[in-house]
Amino acid sequence: MEIKVFKIGGQIVDDADQLQQFITILSKIKGNKILVHGGGKIASQLCMDLGIAPKMHNGRRITDEATLKVVVMAYAGWINKSIVAQLQAKDQNAVGLTGADCNFILAHKRRNSAIDYGFAGDIDKVDASFLETILTKNQIPVVAPITHDGKGQLLNTNADTIANEIAVALAHEHSVDLYYLFDKKGVLADKENEQSVINEIKIAEINDLIDKGIIVDGMIPKIQNAKAALENGVAKIILTNIAELDKSLDHQNVGTTILK
Amino acid sequence: MEIKVFKIGGQIVDDADQLQQFITILSKIKGNKILVHGGGKIASQLCMDLGIAPKMHNGRRITDEATLKVVVMAYAGWINKSIVAQLQAKDQNAVGLTGADCNFILAHKRRNSAIDYGFAGDIDKVDASFLETILTKNQIPVVAPITHDGKGQLLNTNADTIANEIAVALAHEHSVDLYYLFDKKGVLADKENEQSVINEIKIAEINDLIDKGIIVDGMIPKIQNAKAALENGVAKIILTNIAELDKSLDHQNVGTTILK
Repeated sequence: MEIKVFKIGGQIVDDADQLQQFITILSKIKGNKILVHGGGKIASQLCMDLGIAPKMHNGRRITDEATLKVVVMAYAGWINKSIVAQLQAKDQNAVGLTGADCNFILAHKRRNSAIDYGFAGDIDKVDASFLETILTKNQIPVVAPITHDGKGQLLNTNADTIANEIAVALAHEHSVDLYYLFDKKGVLADKENEQSVINEIKIAEINDLIDKGIIVDGMIPKIQNAKAALENGVAKIILTNIAELDKSLDHQNVGTTILK
Repeated sequence: MEIKVFKIGGQIVDDADQLQQFITILSKIKGNKILVHGGGKIASQLCMDLGIAPKMHNGRRITDEATLKVVVMAYAGWINKSIVAQLQAKDQNAVGLTGADCNFILAHKRRNSAIDYGFAGDIDKVDASFLETILTKNQIPVVAPITHDGKGQLLNTNADTIANEIAVALAHEHSVDLYYLFDKKGVLADKENEQSVINEIKIAEINDLIDKGIIVDGMIPKIQNAKAALENGVAKIILTNIAELDKSLDHQNVGTTILK
């Protein structure tokens, strides 16, 4: 089957209007769809409101026990179920999931690291057949960035990584496109010019674009993930924003497509 | 098929040891199982920690917008997914759900009430076939007390009512036993004597037991719900506590069984 995996991050999740707009567009996209959402600011805000000091190391969150509880509540509770309810309102039969549900993403607490990231989970295995069964029933899996270790421990897991691993697991038997929704139209040749979208990047060109400073900052890990996903069978990766995704409904090519 | 629906409330959910004990017992019970859990004190505690004043009317919570967010986070997020992860650790393939997931419990905001209970949901319909499909795959639905209205609004819904409506919906085609786990061995003939459990109550006897002051307080609505469930096809209702439930694994009759 053909499957589209969409990843949305904090920019969309934190903004009720943008989230509503995205859900409307997603509901118009035909075929098999999976949505992976990130967390956004709600968890940090909740930690602050609850007096839990955020612990970070090099921009990565250290998930202590109190923080884990907050991220599970915010991501798997409020954000996940709000998205599901809003999709239902568009007659999209969504089901909200974490990796613990039906044991579909098994992970382990991050190890072999000089820093203890706490309850941060690195993925061991995605159960592709579980997702296939859901898609076959025309249901949309809505996946929160929470996994588990199979021994009773929930784990905080990067949403980009989850989207990638889901896409790769399904790519063994299916044609999978992976969409990263972010705030730009696509990868820009000139970051000052929103119109300078590079329509297509081959993975052989990625290192060169990083060297030239065209792929920068937070986009570097995204693109490196994308590269690995393409090398593992994912058909294509599309980086774009909501407004462009809307245009894709008219069969326009939008954003930046990364291909093997 | 034969189905057992279990309802656990705050006493168990709030106490990590009791919850763990219950999950261990549940994992040993054979056959088709559904778990409905209540909320417990975590939501009230979170509201207090966040400075959201609890609003009550005659002991019932009024769910304003801020409170709804908290109960969805606490019930559908932390409690629900913690239970799922702990069941997975016992090789029980659980899936955590709200009524919004696959639209399986449709409700409406409570109306025709002198008091505005806010985002409190009264159930319209439970999709029994959705639950059947899950049970057929040997999965355990773990249901949080959150529903939706089909128009994008999540709703706070009483867990006892959800357990009842699930049992009744499945009873059309299946043999359903409904277990209410609480802090007593069963309904006591003499409330001072923990050993005075009434083993069996026929629904014709309920009013008399209420008149005599044997069924009292919070047990009255539970038993009246039970009566309605039995009149609508549920095979039997069992009221008991965890320790007794454990004994039932040896095929002992435990607690109080309410029969038509």
